[in-house]
Amino acid sequence: MEKVRLGIIGFGVQGGNYADFIANGKVKGMEIGAICDIEEEKQEAAKQQYPNVPFFNNYTDMLESGNVDAIVTCVPHYLHPEMGIGSIKRDIHALIEKPAGVYTKQVKELNDFAATKPDVLFGIMFNQRTNKLYQKVKEIVDSGDIGNIRRTNWIITSWWRPQGYYEQSAWRATWEGEGGGVLVNQAPHQIDLLQWICGMPKKVYSNVKYGYQRNIPVEDEVTVLLDYGNGATGVFITCTHDVIGTDRFEILGDNGKIVVEDSKKVTIKRLHKPEAEMSATMSMQEVNEIVTGKGTEGIYNEEVLEFESAWGEQHINVLQNFANSLIHGEAILAPGSDGINGVSLANAIHLSSWLGKEVELPIDEEVYYQELMKKVEEERNTAVK
Amino acid sequence: MEKVRLGIIGFGVQGGNYADFIANGKVKGMEIGAICDIEEEKQEAAKQQYPNVPFFNNYTDMLESGNVDAIVTCVPHYLHPEMGIGSIKRDIHALIEKPAGVYTKQVKELNDFAATKPDVLFGIMFNQRTNKLYQKVKEIVDSGDIGNIRRTNWIITSWWRPQGYYEQSAWRATWEGEGGGVLVNQAPHQIDLLQWICGMPKKVYSNVKYGYQRNIPVEDEVTVLLDYGNGATGVFITCTHDVIGTDRFEILGDNGKIVVEDSKKVTIKRLHKPEAEMSATMSMQEVNEIVTGKGTEGIYNEEVLEFESAWGEQHINVLQNFANSLIHGEAILAPGSDGINGVSLANAIHLSSWLGKEVELPIDEEVYYQELMKKVEEERNTAVK
Repeated sequence: MEKVRLGIIGFGVQGGNYADFIANGKVKGMEIGAICDIEEEKQEAAKQQYPNVPFFNNYTDMLESGNVDAIVTCVPHYLHPEMGIGSIKRDIHALIEKPAGVYTKQVKELNDFAATKPDVLFGIMFNQRTNKLYQKVKEIVDSGDIGNIRRTNWIITSWWRPQGYYEQSAWRATWEGEGGGVLVNQAPHQIDLLQWICGMPKKVYSNVKYGYQRNIPVEDEVTVLLDYGNGATGVFITCTHDVIGTDRFEILGDNGKIVVEDSKKVTIKRLHKPEAEMSATMSMQEVNEIVTGKGTEGIYNEEVLEFESAWGEQHINVLQNFANSLIHGEAILAPGSDGINGVSLANAIHLSSWLGKEVELPIDEEVYYQELMKKVEEERNTAVK
Repeated sequence: MEKVRLGIIGFGVQGGNYADFIANGKVKGMEIGAICDIEEEKQEAAKQQYPNVPFFNNYTDMLESGNVDAIVTCVPHYLHPEMGIGSIKRDIHALIEKPAGVYTKQVKELNDFAATKPDVLFGIMFNQRTNKLYQKVKEIVDSGDIGNIRRTNWIITSWWRPQGYYEQSAWRATWEGEGGGVLVNQAPHQIDLLQWICGMPKKVYSNVKYGYQRNIPVEDEVTVLLDYGNGATGVFITCTHDVIGTDRFEILGDNGKIVVEDSKKVTIKRLHKPEAEMSATMSMQEVNEIVTGKGTEGIYNEEVLEFESAWGEQHINVLQNFANSLIHGEAILAPGSDGINGVSLANAIHLSSWLGKEVELPIDEEVYYQELMKKVEEERNTAVK
């Protein structure tokens, strides 16, 4: 393939951004093959902005038009698996938006189907994985520099969304339209990064607040306790009502600690000796000095790294990687099949709060689906929104 | 009273420090009335250092000797309630060490008895309450400056203790000797401060690791999810195996945020408008600017305060406050009856982990006592230490 003709499904804010990136030549080897949307006004907007680009109001028509080599799904989360399957089935490469779906049952169907078509490229828009900062953090963890992980802790409350944001569309922040709130819309980036860098937990216990500070039926505040099954624990906190927003990610390992602040600054402390060895060999005098407050100077090296990130660049990088993969065989940064981990974790967090107890991963996907459908039903029967 | 003659029960590290402070005139209006210890070698040490101070190897003898007006209990935690009652019963003022006891049942007995003797002073060594930094944080929260609390988050892992620390005495870090690990010995300060400043939670769920990184039968790592019952949540994390130690306390309120770092620096962000008002009134354009990353500059005032703390000073301040209270009627900083809150919270954290579920406060103190006694029994039957 010399040029990837991308079919953009959904010409809303995100789909419009991608069209703009591609039309402005920001993604080498990619052009807009077609645009698809079910709304008439989107068709007019697309025709005005991109008069030479074919427009479809049905995504299967677009897939079968011969105009596209690949698609990206800028549509409600529930539809990603269905469209992914529809695309891959027709040998059209698929880049799906995050989250991969709303519930693991549907994402599993997508993954299982995609696995039967290994020659069709299947990626997911985990743009944060192109973030140099998190790539560096993953590299350090993977290298074993800080040893086995003992504790993870991410407070990511910088997803502030005022009530007006939720009023923009009827489907927003509803069980039927999105299948959840901050866990499904804003936090999937960090949920993926957390599992990408530190691995999946074995068990979670959550305290989730639904409509706590916003008039929405879904969650706007989440606190989760993670158990990795090997002694290691973690905490993940997110919400949409903290306008001062905290973003602080700490990873404690056997041999050191990494602290990421505001997704900009990384402080890495590498112990000269593993903590277990320090604990085992320290003399009583040294112990007393520490206990009486003299501290533990000189036991580690500190490295501080600062990163800058430009808005939109990450999405361009994912599109570029997808094009490069098709044209040059470059390894794909975020394989589509990875999407299930974040959905699985988010589902487990919801389920724990609904059942009021710790749940093991993977959760029973049938139970989750039934519980979710109950929420959808309740929502239809009330006039919360 | 012109001079408070203090009876020091327990001439170990802490008792020795108090004797030293008083002998060096650091506590105005206080002198050492007597010293008590059950160990012979302590008697010799006391006689050598303080030849003119009466020594007792039985605390009731000391209480009835006429040599002391007040006592301080530098003995294993289990004994604080019994000695507090023994003292107050004889109209001897009692300053008990933290924690007030190991289980609420015994602390309640102490409190109930002390309440029948309102003229006998009853205090507790919550030295951190004399810390100007935490007094300031409490003052800000109490003033309503940051509004009602929405979330609390304290990571206090700077209680590093190597294995050698635990080997110092046979009673250390055992169920029988201390009734727990980091929750009972190191973290009671922060547990008290947390509830002193932010109030008691209504429910807790904990993940507690027993002997995770140390060869001890009790806990060396604790993660707790707090629920305040009014929508507000919290997280409290402590451990003794993090040699790089984190100490970060964040309080999010309706109108602002307080972040305390390393018990030295306080950053207070006060919103110009309550968050709820911002959420309700923000225009779509402003919303879009925030969502696309333009941020929320100029919405709050920031105040940064730095504090210094000298080791030992806090304990002197508690002793001084106790003396001033007896001599001049000064209000007592940490009334003894306050000690039950921290014990109640620590007990709930243990119990949640033992039962594997969220527990409501106050917990059933009989259930806790029975479970604790089971741990003591198991410990006696194994040779963990």
